[in-house]
Parts: sequence; structure tokens; C-alpha cells
Amino acid sequence: MPKFAKTPEPPYYAVIFTSVRRDDGYAQVAERMVELASQQPGFLGVESVRGADGFGITVSYWTSEEAIAAWKANVEHLAVQEKGKQKWYEHYDLRVAKVNRAYSKPAA
Amino acid sequence: MPKFAKTPEPPYYAVIFTSVRRDDGYAQVAERMVELASQQPGFLGVESVRGADGFGITVSYWTSEEAIAAWKANVEHLAVQEKGKQKWYEHYDLRVAKVNRAYSKPAA
Repeated sequence: MPKFAKTPEPPYYAVIFTSVRRDDGYAQVAERMVELASQQPGFLGVESVRGADGFGITVSYWTSEEAIAAWKANVEHLAVQEKGKQKWYEHYDLRVAKVNRAYSKPAA
Repeated sequence: MPKFAKTPEPPYYAVIFTSVRRDDGYAQVAERMVELASQQPGFLGVESVRGADGFGITVSYWTSEEAIAAWKANVEHLAVQEKGKQKWYEHYDLRVAKVNRAYSKPAA
């Protein structure tokens, strides 16, 4: 999967997820979640980095709020969300935002 | 500076900056930019991670679009933006988004 998400012209939506992970039994699950998300209607792409200290930022991009709600309600994803809360994440913040403008270099 | 930004109840704004950095003569400049941004009116916080491969995500949070525009127009920041385009970044994407909802663990 490429590092940069290829997103269309705004508007579209972003889910900004910042977290500190408690252990590293999660790498395979994270890969599976990206695979699963990318099969969801309205998925546009994902960008993700985690530092050696366990702090990470993942931003996923979606066509609509409805697409985000459907992904949140995905049964396999729900189970992982629960395990994330109980086990993997010391702390996280999740923000849902509407992207209104975008710039890049080189220009798309 | 703490890893997680302490942001108020939405709505507020986020600038999502994803990039690949070409060289590492930038660390001090990045620190200075965070210091300078945090003195700007309307600055709420910043979260940033860069991987060993040079790919990074920085999200800064702001009270308003006007605050973002003022930061973009800051003279010292403008010079760094230009150098970033010319020298430091192979590629970047910058997205301006309005945060409508936020959740966290533990609940704030």
C-alpha cells in the first residue's frame, strides 16, 4: 500500500486517529483492518505512521459521513475496536473532520 | 511538548500535513516552527510522528480558518514553507479540515 493516500478533490472526510499502543501484538490486526477498510464503500485511502515510542497517527479518508458510520459498524471492525479499548491502547483520540481544501507538492 | 493535543469540544479546525522528507537538516527548524505556531492566536495544539523511512504525519489544530490563514502568512513561517518546497520535501499533501466530532480513551 502506498504511503500517500490518493484522494479526490475536496470535499471529503477524514478520520484522524492518534494513539499510544500498549503492546505490539497488533501489527497483523492493523494490516487486516486496512485490508477490510479498503473494501468498504466510500473508502478513499489511509496514511499511517507509528514512532518507536508507540505513539502513532493514522488518518483514513472517506467519501461521506455515512461511509465512516458503516465502517465503524462493521462487525469484524467492532470486535477489534473493543479489543483496542480493552487491551491495545493506553490512550487514543479519534476525530472526524470534513476536508475542505487540499494542496500538494508536486501538484497532483 | 506532550504527544497528544488537548483540544476543546468541536467544532475546530485541523491541518493534516503528510510528507516525505529528503534530508534531516530540518529537526531544529521543525522545533522552531512548533514554538512559533504555539504563539499564534488560535493555535490549539499539534501532533506529529515521523517514521525511520522519512514519511511523516503532522496534524495541527486551530480555532478557525482565519487562525490557519494567519499562521500560513507568518513571515518566518513563509520562508520555511519556501525552503520546504525547494529543498526538504520530496512530496507532501496538506489538507485543511473542520473537526466535527471527537472521542477519546480515557474519556476527557
